[in-house]
Amino acid sequence: MSFAVAIGIDLGGTNLKVAAVDSTGRVLSSAQTATNPARGPEIVLAEMVDLSDRLLTQLNRTRAALIGVGVGAPGPLNQTAGTVVRAANLVGWNDVPIRDFLHKSLHVLVHLENDANAAAYGEFWVGDPKNRTDLVLLTLGTGVGAGIILGGQVLRGHFENAGELGHMIVNPEGPLCACGQRGCLEQYASGTSVTQRAQSELRGGAHSTLRQILHTQGTLNASDVSRCAQQSDPLSMRIWLETCMYLALACINIQHAFNPARIILGGGLSQAGEFLLHSVQNEFKNRFWKLGHDVPAIGLARLGYDAGAIGAAGLAWKNCTAGT
Amino acid sequence: MSFAVAIGIDLGGTNLKVAAVDSTGRVLSSAQTATNPARGPEIVLAEMVDLSDRLLTQLNRTRAALIGVGVGAPGPLNQTAGTVVRAANLVGWNDVPIRDFLHKSLHVLVHLENDANAAAYGEFWVGDPKNRTDLVLLTLGTGVGAGIILGGQVLRGHFENAGELGHMIVNPEGPLCACGQRGCLEQYASGTSVTQRAQSELRGGAHSTLRQILHTQGTLNASDVSRCAQQSDPLSMRIWLETCMYLALACINIQHAFNPARIILGGGLSQAGEFLLHSVQNEFKNRFWKLGHDVPAIGLARLGYDAGAIGAAGLAWKNCTAGT
Repeated sequence: MSFAVAIGIDLGGTNLKVAAVDSTGRVLSSAQTATNPARGPEIVLAEMVDLSDRLLTQLNRTRAALIGVGVGAPGPLNQTAGTVVRAANLVGWNDVPIRDFLHKSLHVLVHLENDANAAAYGEFWVGDPKNRTDLVLLTLGTGVGAGIILGGQVLRGHFENAGELGHMIVNPEGPLCACGQRGCLEQYASGTSVTQRAQSELRGGAHSTLRQILHTQGTLNASDVSRCAQQSDPLSMRIWLETCMYLALACINIQHAFNPARIILGGGLSQAGEFLLHSVQNEFKNRFWKLGHDVPAIGLARLGYDAGAIGAAGLAWKNCTAGT
Repeated sequence: MSFAVAIGIDLGGTNLKVAAVDSTGRVLSSAQTATNPARGPEIVLAEMVDLSDRLLTQLNRTRAALIGVGVGAPGPLNQTAGTVVRAANLVGWNDVPIRDFLHKSLHVLVHLENDANAAAYGEFWVGDPKNRTDLVLLTLGTGVGAGIILGGQVLRGHFENAGELGHMIVNPEGPLCACGQRGCLEQYASGTSVTQRAQSELRGGAHSTLRQILHTQGTLNASDVSRCAQQSDPLSMRIWLETCMYLALACINIQHAFNPARIILGGGLSQAGEFLLHSVQNEFKNRFWKLGHDVPAIGLARLGYDAGAIGAAGLAWKNCTAGT
């Protein structure tokens, strides 16, 4: 099986990524294209097949070398039927039978997984020399997503909706979230919320170097806030610290719940790197209980935007090769 | 195997319970005695063996009918060594080799589990006609403990400390907990905290029928507060509602994390029954997100103080009979 590959597919609202991955998690070849979901599911699905074949050709392999396909797709999914039920970023995609289509087209087993779970599996699978079997990934982007790996398995839960950690309530008095709750983690730790809090303060008359940036750029984003916080702009520092404090609280609650070996921070906000990580680690250390010996390694995601495709391929290696 | 039984042992700081349980979770015979841990581990362990033999004799069975022994014991445990490392309520018990002792004495496989996990397994195992494979149990007693069953398995976590849900932070501005954190669930939802908040308000001069009860009884407990809340005493109602609100927040966070089919409330505070349950369900309904279809059944524990022994026996049935 040394020539074998798995194909991992990351279906996003913006980009479609396909990667041919060996059994060790190494990407042998990959391709990316705009999803353009308005073209309709049939065309996007056909493109998944085309890109898969093209990658195999690039690698001088036939479909016989393909051991399986993993797909990370936006939820909610119907795992029994193998369908994308609907997705906020894939308008018009209702009950799309992604698993059956790929199975019939490529003649291999197909593993379908929630995109956040696939990314978590990627971070879990690739490159932990200590071989620890569990991990929680928080993705800090437009929203806050999460994937949970326990004992080497993706946790889905009874309703297949486990790991919606962006909607953990971290402040019962906090702002209203679009989900209907108050004080969700997402209200503090998404890139969107960082930007919105800065804009709201500026509208309220706060002094900050962010005002000049907003004036020049016409817009603000979370990386402006993190950069200004590093340059000691007081408003930016306050917002950034609040974000890190709530992230640390979330990590504490995650630790008491799942007791993982590792908690990994990914997504756009994690591009602040050590500046994010050190603040979260520091707040965690100050606020975590003093009774236990169960301190997790809190780290940054390693795979960046490839985590979903690599993780999907990893799940294909895990689930499509039983008995081979 | 129709004559076979498992022995379940619940080792508490106050009581030692032993039950002979059939493969369906029915208690065929049981015994209870004061643990009196100061006698030392050797005597208590010998008593476990004696009580087990006595139950078998009562049932006209020999040790040949014994398929295994399950023990629920206070953590932290060392699962690899099969020992009770130490326990707040078992003074002087350090690294007690409970598993090996019982194995050598009774000549069967022994399964050792954290007491909260054993109780959760009991509630999981006995009497869910829908056969759902997961459950989270919150025990609201002196402290707040929890046990988590996912896919029919006890969740232990990397550090074997999963499910310390009493130390989820539900209010970052909340009171200091003995564990070193602020605003732990235990500060709102343990029997101890209910009583302490009432006493603190009375010391502050609050009007309440609790004052008369304290004067008469010389002491207060959580059931006084729940009873007075049912009788519309304003202070008691305020404390009770706060407790139920934070319990509902905890249930929301549990649901987003694990997505279980059921969340079960047990322990002393749950003796308030429907008065507790309806308030928690109501707060949950008002505060839970409106996006998902993932609403758990929130219910009361059924097994009361027998949950630990029954669950320990269930874990013996599950783990000591593989291959038979």
